[in-house]
Amino acid sequence: MLYFQCDYNNGAHPEIIRRLAETNDELHPGYGDDKYSLSAKEKIRKICGRSDAEVFLTVGGTQTNKIVINALLSHGEGVVSAETGHINCHEAGAIEETGHKVLALSQKEGKISSKVLEKYLERFYDDEAHDHMVFPGMVYISHPTEYRTLYTKEELQTLSGICREYDIPLFLDGARLGYGLMSDGTDVTIEDIAELCDVFYIGGTKVGAICGEAVVFTNRKAPKRFFQIVKQSGALLAKGRLLGIQFDTLFENNLYFEISRHAIKMADRIREIFTEKGYEFFIETKTNQVFVILENSKMEELKNNVVFEFWERKNANHTVVRFASSWATKEEDIEKLRELL
Amino acid sequence: MLYFQCDYNNGAHPEIIRRLAETNDELHPGYGDDKYSLSAKEKIRKICGRSDAEVFLTVGGTQTNKIVINALLSHGEGVVSAETGHINCHEAGAIEETGHKVLALSQKEGKISSKVLEKYLERFYDDEAHDHMVFPGMVYISHPTEYRTLYTKEELQTLSGICREYDIPLFLDGARLGYGLMSDGTDVTIEDIAELCDVFYIGGTKVGAICGEAVVFTNRKAPKRFFQIVKQSGALLAKGRLLGIQFDTLFENNLYFEISRHAIKMADRIREIFTEKGYEFFIETKTNQVFVILENSKMEELKNNVVFEFWERKNANHTVVRFASSWATKEEDIEKLRELL
Amino acid sequence: MLYFQCDYNNGAHPEIIRRLAETNDELHPGYGDDKYSLSAKEKIRKICGRSDAEVFLTVGGTQTNKIVINALLSHGEGVVSAETGHINCHEAGAIEETGHKVLALSQKEGKISSKVLEKYLERFYDDEAHDHMVFPGMVYISHPTEYRTLYTKEELQTLSGICREYDIPLFLDGARLGYGLMSDGTDVTIEDIAELCDVFYIGGTKVGAICGEAVVFTNRKAPKRFFQIVKQSGALLAKGRLLGIQFDTLFENNLYFEISRHAIKMADRIREIFTEKGYEFFIETKTNQVFVILENSKMEELKNNVVFEFWERKNANHTVVRFASSWATKEEDIEKLRELL
Amino acid sequence: MLYFQCDYNNGAHPEIIRRLAETNDELHPGYGDDKYSLSAKEKIRKICGRSDAEVFLTVGGTQTNKIVINALLSHGEGVVSAETGHINCHEAGAIEETGHKVLALSQKEGKISSKVLEKYLERFYDDEAHDHMVFPGMVYISHPTEYRTLYTKEELQTLSGICREYDIPLFLDGARLGYGLMSDGTDVTIEDIAELCDVFYIGGTKVGAICGEAVVFTNRKAPKRFFQIVKQSGALLAKGRLLGIQFDTLFENNLYFEISRHAIKMADRIREIFTEKGYEFFIETKTNQVFVILENSKMEELKNNVVFEFWERKNANHTVVRFASSWATKEEDIEKLRELL
Repeated sequence: MLYFQCDYNNGAHPEIIRRLAETNDELHPGYGDDKYSLSAKEKIRKICGRSDAEVFLTVGGTQTNKIVINALLSHGEGVVSAETGHINCHEAGAIEETGHKVLALSQKEGKISSKVLEKYLERFYDDEAHDHMVFPGMVYISHPTEYRTLYTKEELQTLSGICREYDIPLFLDGARLGYGLMSDGTDVTIEDIAELCDVFYIGGTKVGAICGEAVVFTNRKAPKRFFQIVKQSGALLAKGRLLGIQFDTLFENNLYFEISRHAIKMADRIREIFTEKGYEFFIETKTNQVFVILENSKMEELKNNVVFEFWERKNANHTVVRFASSWATKEEDIEKLRELL
Repeated sequence: MLYFQCDYNNGAHPEIIRRLAETNDELHPGYGDDKYSLSAKEKIRKICGRSDAEVFLTVGGTQTNKIVINALLSHGEGVVSAETGHINCHEAGAIEETGHKVLALSQKEGKISSKVLEKYLERFYDDEAHDHMVFPGMVYISHPTEYRTLYTKEELQTLSGICREYDIPLFLDGARLGYGLMSDGTDVTIEDIAELCDVFYIGGTKVGAICGEAVVFTNRKAPKRFFQIVKQSGALLAKGRLLGIQFDTLFENNLYFEISRHAIKMADRIREIFTEKGYEFFIETKTNQVFVILENSKMEELKNNVVFEFWERKNANHTVVRFASSWATKEEDIEKLRELL
Repeated sequence: MLYFQCDYNNGAHPEIIRRLAETNDELHPGYGDDKYSLSAKEKIRKICGRSDAEVFLTVGGTQTNKIVINALLSHGEGVVSAETGHINCHEAGAIEETGHKVLALSQKEGKISSKVLEKYLERFYDDEAHDHMVFPGMVYISHPTEYRTLYTKEELQTLSGICREYDIPLFLDGARLGYGLMSDGTDVTIEDIAELCDVFYIGGTKVGAICGEAVVFTNRKAPKRFFQIVKQSGALLAKGRLLGIQFDTLFENNLYFEISRHAIKMADRIREIFTEKGYEFFIETKTNQVFVILENSKMEELKNNVVFEFWERKNANHTVVRFASSWATKEEDIEKLRELL
Repeated sequence: MLYFQCDYNNGAHPEIIRRLAETNDELHPGYGDDKYSLSAKEKIRKICGRSDAEVFLTVGGTQTNKIVINALLSHGEGVVSAETGHINCHEAGAIEETGHKVLALSQKEGKISSKVLEKYLERFYDDEAHDHMVFPGMVYISHPTEYRTLYTKEELQTLSGICREYDIPLFLDGARLGYGLMSDGTDVTIEDIAELCDVFYIGGTKVGAICGEAVVFTNRKAPKRFFQIVKQSGALLAKGRLLGIQFDTLFENNLYFEISRHAIKMADRIREIFTEKGYEFFIETKTNQVFVILENSKMEELKNNVVFEFWERKNANHTVVRFASSWATKEEDIEKLRELL
């Protein structure tokens, strides 16, 4: 059986397992004060080109979105998001559970356009009744998006400019950031993100770690007592070393970027194969996920040998499905896929 | 340097690291549907003697307390706890953050007496103004307690009886449950707990795991949609295997109990040594932590070679300190400690 | 100046003021145990034809929506609403502040169609990922809607049937219920509402009272401890008589219905006048509010003598505006309006 | 029957009823923009000697405590209160419902001593684990307290000084403020309160109004968007004039102070009578409530003619009961009480 279902079916990168084993007998202080956590944070600051960035290590994506958004919003503020945003669709109401509305904007392929954002903000402040409404308190984007599309540097600059004009933070959900950074579908670098966003996170769980996300606050936007908020949210690990060792490994010798590049290369191959074979794509992506339209009979046939994800029905005879690569995808599996198509 | 500071300075039990490495290349479904999670839950049900128990794996203790308490309380209800309860003191307000009051009762060595509980409940319902007050919606105890003391079976039965009389669930925080079960300071077994409590958790983080707690609901008290509550709380791991493999390992061949017994044995030795050397104890404990009174000069001297925890000032010349053993404590370190005393 | 801006610019119906004065020296128990509150509730049960209904008196509309929705939803549930619903637009995030998402559906003239609701519910439960999503826990409709349109009995029956099929309560926001009941734009009676909905409220603030709404739970759907939830929400008046006297007056001799009928009659006149004068309507309403399209020059001219509400720009030369009548609207003012048009 | 049970059994001061009737036909903008609300706020600013104070009118006491405390606290902060504080005992968990812990301190006759506060704050910041605890984010006191005792100016200055040292706001609950200001049991004036506290409220409900409290923020401590927080909390009245007219009346010609003085005079008479007759007091109060110890047989006898409040059992034969006066207490009723004793 070939697996292209998603990017979280594997364990961790072998180097992470090796380091966990190697350091297992060491004694370290708890709650993130271990030397690996400190070293990981230092490496991340360096990679972002921001010596003043504040870095925190958390366990998972929904948790991170929840804590960051709650920490940055004030009473009566909501978070602006594409209506397809993960926080609006697939986090079981985690944001609202903190008392804040998700202010959903229309989107295109998962992205918020600067026009839509600007118009929304203008209208909001023009509305005489806006004191009876939820204030836009921050903007959430994901990169890659839920459709695995990417913002360009220019797009990010414009969004960032609007946010700064309205004095609201811009938050980038980077659950799959590595795959975005290594794609040739965008010119955005991690330094750009650190400059243009006020907070973002570098996803570990989907990019080589067994768990873990690294939250980066720039522009002095880290909330007062973020550590305590993490604790209060039930997100603080007693053995913070579990996260520290993983991120320290991922940012040693550019491992994070290399394994991300591998995933992109594998996805590019998948795209090539489908193109060669004459399949149509549902969306043009350049990240680690490929959305392709299959004839239903072909889909059923493939299911015997390949695991992939149902996305949506296209029409009576065709279905959109998703093939995902990851840092762990093997070239040989892709060759086998080619043969099956 | 000798370390007796706490029970979370190590990594994981080596067998856990071995299994993580061994299974690392396997592909498993996410969110706790992997076969190791299923197997771990089955083993836990068996150990509890409760085939109908519902088991969930979570990441940490504060997180678990927060989710369980929030899930079980209704509007306007609070959780009854000893005033020294972890939820009342050291979880940064995690319970209140969910909208519920901690109803703190006076305690003795960390335990709630059935008399105090009964009197409180009687007075509450006798009070004409109780509709303007927070209703007691559940009772929280820890075992071992924050003072590392233990309930006897009789005490637990009485507390359980009161809770059932008032139809409120009894929740036992077992962050260090293994150390309680293997101590000869109580006759309480895990089957007793499963029978007398409505929900409890089996602590992993402090007993051999690198992270993880196993929540057990008995008596059909699992809340509707607990899975979704876990997700909404940001506590659901994409790679649930991390927890599954750990608990599957801990409950294979009684590993959990054996390593707990080791910790108790080591703590007993520490107690013996202090007794031999004529030291006085602050509290008589029979679990993995020892509270001893040191002369300040001795304390300062010891600090050069041993790491232990400051507990509280006793008087001008004496201080209460805590020595903790764990599953990882080495006999040789205890010998070295003897020499230093 | 003529005022047709909204239905809350007046004080209270004179009969209410008279009764407040008349009873002012009486001594009554606090917190809603006064005889007027008890009498008002009894009258409301009678009018609804439901001797088993549970009635609570609250102060305002947003407060009522917030408390009812929060009290009825469980963890991880949201409230389904038209995207134009008051709770989704103009309550400053009051619902989300309680931790629950507003699940906004597309609408037509402020109404949720049964097709849209049914499709949404079917899709939700068909979605394999729905455990990662917010569960629909109740349905909120307003009657009259935010566009002052009305459900027919058949429409209400169908919506109610769907809710019962899915076992979720149906909540009707009746902030302007009197105007809906006295309109000839629907055949829905208050008995129908009591039968088909599980909870609704009878608006006082916009229909003769100076403040106050009456919440009615039918079908034994009143939450455990609703009184205490009201207290916890800060909505319980020490001098509950203020609400009791008002509703007791409104439901004495059908006052509530008579003054509502007057408002409808006045709105009908306004509609006639605009029709006569050849104006076009933006939406056909049969309640106490009239949405009409004015040429901008005419609008500016009118503003010198009439206060009305801007609704939205229609095009470069035309604007949609709203004229509202109320229980207090004077016939003579309508004659003056006719002259100005 | 004579009523001395509490201070909220009457309606409103007759002058308030008169003004409500007089202004009833006037048309005013909603949501607090009416001229009476504006005028009331201006009068309150003047009386406080603070032209820069921000004043908001709310409906009830629990509501006000809830909104103010929630608005001023940040994530992870709690409110320090005497353990007998109304927010800790009789608000059904309203504070916790907003996500914040009440940090209860020991008290004496309802008051927090500066020593207790200072020691608590010192210990908190000295505690190495305080990042795992709830931060003291503001201090709540009531004046008169729940035992109807009063702070002296010196006491208030010291508490205020400590709060400023720790940079946390001081909030004074003045549900019965008038009775505190007119008592000769303290030298504290309303100007002192405005200077020494950062926010306080002037109670209307218990002092002449039928509902309503006036929140005053000084020292520029009003939270951003307090209006919207009030709306979101469900506390904003559409017909804000109801509050505006009441406070405008209460602060016209010193009515508030005069009726408060009357209540104090009446309570003084009650105290005199009990003293004359040789009764013992449970607590020495100088406000509008008198706590006296009755022999049980006398208590039962009195109950035939007088309504008063049970406070607590003193011993087998004696009970503590409370007699309350108010702005509405009649001298003749006090004479009748004298005869019954």
